[in-house]
Amino acid sequence: MADIPKTMRASVLVDTNRIEMQERPVPQAGPGEVLIRVRSVGVCGSDVHYYYEGRIGDLVVESPLVLGHEVSGVIVDVGPGVSEDRIGERVAIDPQVPCRHCRFCRTGKLNLCREMKFYATPPIDGAFADYVTAPADFCYPVPDSISDNAAALLEPFSVGLWACSKASIEPGSTVFITGGGPIGAFAAMAARGYGATSVIVSDLVESRRERILSFGATESVDPTDKSFDPSAIGADAFIECSGATPALLSGLHALRPAGTAVMVGLGAEEMPIPVQLIMNNELVLTGMFRYVDTWPKVIELARTSPFDLDALVTGEFELEDAEAALTSDSDPMSMKSVVVVSRA
Amino acid sequence: MADIPKTMRASVLVDTNRIEMQERPVPQAGPGEVLIRVRSVGVCGSDVHYYYEGRIGDLVVESPLVLGHEVSGVIVDVGPGVSEDRIGERVAIDPQVPCRHCRFCRTGKLNLCREMKFYATPPIDGAFADYVTAPADFCYPVPDSISDNAAALLEPFSVGLWACSKASIEPGSTVFITGGGPIGAFAAMAARGYGATSVIVSDLVESRRERILSFGATESVDPTDKSFDPSAIGADAFIECSGATPALLSGLHALRPAGTAVMVGLGAEEMPIPVQLIMNNELVLTGMFRYVDTWPKVIELARTSPFDLDALVTGEFELEDAEAALTSDSDPMSMKSVVVVSRA
Amino acid sequence: MADIPKTMRASVLVDTNRIEMQERPVPQAGPGEVLIRVRSVGVCGSDVHYYYEGRIGDLVVESPLVLGHEVSGVIVDVGPGVSEDRIGERVAIDPQVPCRHCRFCRTGKLNLCREMKFYATPPIDGAFADYVTAPADFCYPVPDSISDNAAALLEPFSVGLWACSKASIEPGSTVFITGGGPIGAFAAMAARGYGATSVIVSDLVESRRERILSFGATESVDPTDKSFDPSAIGADAFIECSGATPALLSGLHALRPAGTAVMVGLGAEEMPIPVQLIMNNELVLTGMFRYVDTWPKVIELARTSPFDLDALVTGEFELEDAEAALTSDSDPMSMKSVVVVSRA
Amino acid sequence: MADIPKTMRASVLVDTNRIEMQERPVPQAGPGEVLIRVRSVGVCGSDVHYYYEGRIGDLVVESPLVLGHEVSGVIVDVGPGVSEDRIGERVAIDPQVPCRHCRFCRTGKLNLCREMKFYATPPIDGAFADYVTAPADFCYPVPDSISDNAAALLEPFSVGLWACSKASIEPGSTVFITGGGPIGAFAAMAARGYGATSVIVSDLVESRRERILSFGATESVDPTDKSFDPSAIGADAFIECSGATPALLSGLHALRPAGTAVMVGLGAEEMPIPVQLIMNNELVLTGMFRYVDTWPKVIELARTSPFDLDALVTGEFELEDAEAALTSDSDPMSMKSVVVVSRA
Repeated sequence: MADIPKTMRASVLVDTNRIEMQERPVPQAGPGEVLIRVRSVGVCGSDVHYYYEGRIGDLVVESPLVLGHEVSGVIVDVGPGVSEDRIGERVAIDPQVPCRHCRFCRTGKLNLCREMKFYATPPIDGAFADYVTAPADFCYPVPDSISDNAAALLEPFSVGLWACSKASIEPGSTVFITGGGPIGAFAAMAARGYGATSVIVSDLVESRRERILSFGATESVDPTDKSFDPSAIGADAFIECSGATPALLSGLHALRPAGTAVMVGLGAEEMPIPVQLIMNNELVLTGMFRYVDTWPKVIELARTSPFDLDALVTGEFELEDAEAALTSDSDPMSMKSVVVVSRA
Repeated sequence: MADIPKTMRASVLVDTNRIEMQERPVPQAGPGEVLIRVRSVGVCGSDVHYYYEGRIGDLVVESPLVLGHEVSGVIVDVGPGVSEDRIGERVAIDPQVPCRHCRFCRTGKLNLCREMKFYATPPIDGAFADYVTAPADFCYPVPDSISDNAAALLEPFSVGLWACSKASIEPGSTVFITGGGPIGAFAAMAARGYGATSVIVSDLVESRRERILSFGATESVDPTDKSFDPSAIGADAFIECSGATPALLSGLHALRPAGTAVMVGLGAEEMPIPVQLIMNNELVLTGMFRYVDTWPKVIELARTSPFDLDALVTGEFELEDAEAALTSDSDPMSMKSVVVVSRA
Repeated sequence: MADIPKTMRASVLVDTNRIEMQERPVPQAGPGEVLIRVRSVGVCGSDVHYYYEGRIGDLVVESPLVLGHEVSGVIVDVGPGVSEDRIGERVAIDPQVPCRHCRFCRTGKLNLCREMKFYATPPIDGAFADYVTAPADFCYPVPDSISDNAAALLEPFSVGLWACSKASIEPGSTVFITGGGPIGAFAAMAARGYGATSVIVSDLVESRRERILSFGATESVDPTDKSFDPSAIGADAFIECSGATPALLSGLHALRPAGTAVMVGLGAEEMPIPVQLIMNNELVLTGMFRYVDTWPKVIELARTSPFDLDALVTGEFELEDAEAALTSDSDPMSMKSVVVVSRA
Repeated sequence: MADIPKTMRASVLVDTNRIEMQERPVPQAGPGEVLIRVRSVGVCGSDVHYYYEGRIGDLVVESPLVLGHEVSGVIVDVGPGVSEDRIGERVAIDPQVPCRHCRFCRTGKLNLCREMKFYATPPIDGAFADYVTAPADFCYPVPDSISDNAAALLEPFSVGLWACSKASIEPGSTVFITGGGPIGAFAAMAARGYGATSVIVSDLVESRRERILSFGATESVDPTDKSFDPSAIGADAFIECSGATPALLSGLHALRPAGTAVMVGLGAEEMPIPVQLIMNNELVLTGMFRYVDTWPKVIELARTSPFDLDALVTGEFELEDAEAALTSDSDPMSMKSVVVVSRA
């Protein structure tokens, strides 16, 4: 095992629109934790939000913050209570640190824990750095067939899977997804994992409509197309991944009676919802917040996937260029930017 | 068995605000059907709507219509394929006539059948008449301990039960209900049937807040009271029975994370919904439309109920006075008006 | 549309081990029914049972019986109430004729209907004949990409799917299946449809262990192999498709805590079950009987399947050779024999 | 707050059939723990088993063991990380100490944790002592209306509730329970909490059949009565609380199609099960092991219960007489013996 240095590089958001490289002490693995040499870190929309706006709703960046929560790496040290056998494991990280004691944690809803600590959510530092610590049981070994980049992307894959887990998708289901970005793509692939055989994705951008056909969609549509009639879809499930109000409305109309809508994309705080449509058709409208126990599932899906997760990565950046990674997202041709902190 | 006459009385809505008694032929029980001598018929908000407005949404009264769909009676004749043993049975009627052939009917969702015929829903006549026919398997025998009036009220009780069946109520649950009218009362009693130990009902009218404490509520609150803070409730489930937009919003805030909201009350077609609240807390928002297989359950609940269903009836009317029954609802002191078509 | 003759050929079980070709009147489509020109009929283990034993448990063949219940064909006539547009449709048949009126039928459990009529279950004739009738809503159009033979096999595919539907299989699940015959194969393919990524099938016969790898299994094992330890599997779900008592026991030990076992294979009426194992691990043991609403799902799975359903057919027989088809099953190399009654 | 002494009394099982009072150091509350002054401790069948046999299955008493796991008490001290505000709280204890890190713990199945520590399960000491420690979040405050004895009995009530939670009981359900001892009584009361309106309990002993009518049963039956035909019951759910093989078999026959059987009573390791009955009727057979998150529910049920939990206590014993409490169970008139360690 390589020696662990005393200090490390960290890419720090010091103000809106300003990232600074800093030298910081390498953290130490506490009880039940491991220390991880970071490999790849995906850029998420929330990172971009913090970069440009300094906040997401009530979550405000009030002091320098390391961004990045889609992480793969290698375990290089273990804290008290963790077997040394784990040193050397290449892992994907579920970036949640729940309290483990509240009623949510004890009943399988740890994502709703009120004491949750989460990478890159103020004031908790994220993973745009050489090393991070994490609870040992939230670090999942990945097989060789999953690359470092793909292992990092298991976090957004988890978002897609968790959304689908709430949508009662069965073999043969028709799923309608609005928004053909990374989350839409992972939701589409997850829907296929649940057995959906028709996955229709709507997106305003033509290039995205084309690309998504390689990532789970069986069909893609332009929502502005006059011939597009959502109510003709009769979807069993609808996953909203755009945050756009019209998208949510079109999806509710796309559902067959007793269908389920899951909101994933962040948009307006409030939206005008056709409540009588929901009542008359006994639709279910719900949303999702992070995930629970998804890594074992997405690792298996990734391991056996007919889709090429690495092809989702449209930009690789060095840690020093994390800011470029954060701003690369504005290009509609960008799918997923990854900061490669270290390589095998 | 008494002789069945050729003609009968029917109370017919001939125009908005105009009910007329008519002499009509007694219907005949077709294959699989029974003929029922009507006993009691409850007045529902939908009857009142048709009376005053002539429509509910897309459902328009375009020709004379017999109202009334909360019905008890006695089987007096059977159609082909139904055992004569059923003659003389005192029954409560599930007023649904589904197609039995569509995918909804075949998979336990007959309430969503697109070919449904339903009493007093244009153009199907209801039960403000001496006789009605119904499918034999939708007529449920009631024990002697349930009165004719109470047997009629098993229909709105079914609404309350079906709402609760969608709300994941468990022993010890806290349920918040907005609207202390008949549906709120039945929802409260149903919630207790599911094991809820705290049932908090909000209503604007003081007399209703008091009365509901005899019908399932363990506490009632004035939503305009400044000290009332819905978000302090932490309800496991929320049943909206008022149709009022502010009530729906208060209920969504009353839910604990992962709680379920069920919309029952009919109000605006569209409401501004706090979608981020739903997402961040993984709330579930759904609605209900009629019911499936609820009579066996509400008969049992009524049979063993600690609550006095007959006490819900605040007005009894003769068939000739059906119009008075329909207009009696405007009195806030009115809970449930019943048209007593015949008596034992 | 071709003229429909007055009489037709039927392959009739007149005694145990004795099949006779008979000339019979072509049946007529009753209300809500269609008349079907039979194309392909799969041979099922139950057909073979009736042929050799004349009974399955309490179901005794007491008069001549037409066997065959795995059926595809073309609609050639419709009864009252069915649109003539359906004439010409190539269909797969769900061979259930439930009463549609009992509580099971009304609540989505029609497979448990006590009045069920089922092809080739005494005294109801099956489909080893030129024509059969069926309820229109139980005849499902199949796309061109599914052959007549494959369309017939949607019945055993339904068995496999229904088994899996009871097994809480999720993306990434490990499923253990005992018995690598046709039902094991369909269960394996269905498990993959539900997202299972490890499907381990045990079978005593080496050729079957090899072949099943083309039909959904990711691994196959010899249960008599000394190195095989079921309890090392940690399966999320177990589907028993052999009817063998030791297989059921091995599968119960193969389950992880809280796993589910579904019994499909018919064997002894009673088996010694390790009840404390079930209790201590909160295992779920259940069984299945036919299916509900599976055709829409298996049609979609078959349409998009990576597996070649036609390759399951190891023998094609003319209607005149139905007896040879029934006896062909004794060859362990046989997977599925099909009687081809007519061709396009 | 009273001073906490250095040593305390403990009633220790030093050999089979031999209990000894010992002076032991008072334990200290570790991180996240509280120290509890024990009030009441119920005697469970498992305590009695260990006393007479020195083992239950693989769990062998190999060194002196303090028995007792049904515990109420008062918090008298807190460990690091626990608010001092909790000192003085009267609590009921969920006697599980799960690892909180395994997949079971993280997904709401902590009862299946392989690292579980549980009072009075070798080698973990139980609560027949003046003081015990417990995780703070597994100690639930009880309202004044629940006595110390009743608070201790929330543990077996949890067993009954957890059994019922697996049985799909709904309002109006018919539940069949075999065994009218304490667990049968708690299962009956829990079934009522879930809305069951018919709860039929079978027991061989007449006095138990009478007594159970005060504890949730609506009817009790003698299983040896010739006129008793389990298959006439048509139960929606069956809870086996006797451990007797014939009881399990009768209960399986008592179920309606699609009904659920839950095994609670400990009996033979293996039982001959009618697997074809399970298959043909799609019955579900499962078992239960301890419980998850039941205290909040049983506290609410106990708080609002129409049943008198204190009346279940048929014998109170001083700590010095714990051995008498353990042997009191052999009297069939005994329902529940409680060791009263201290009083308010």
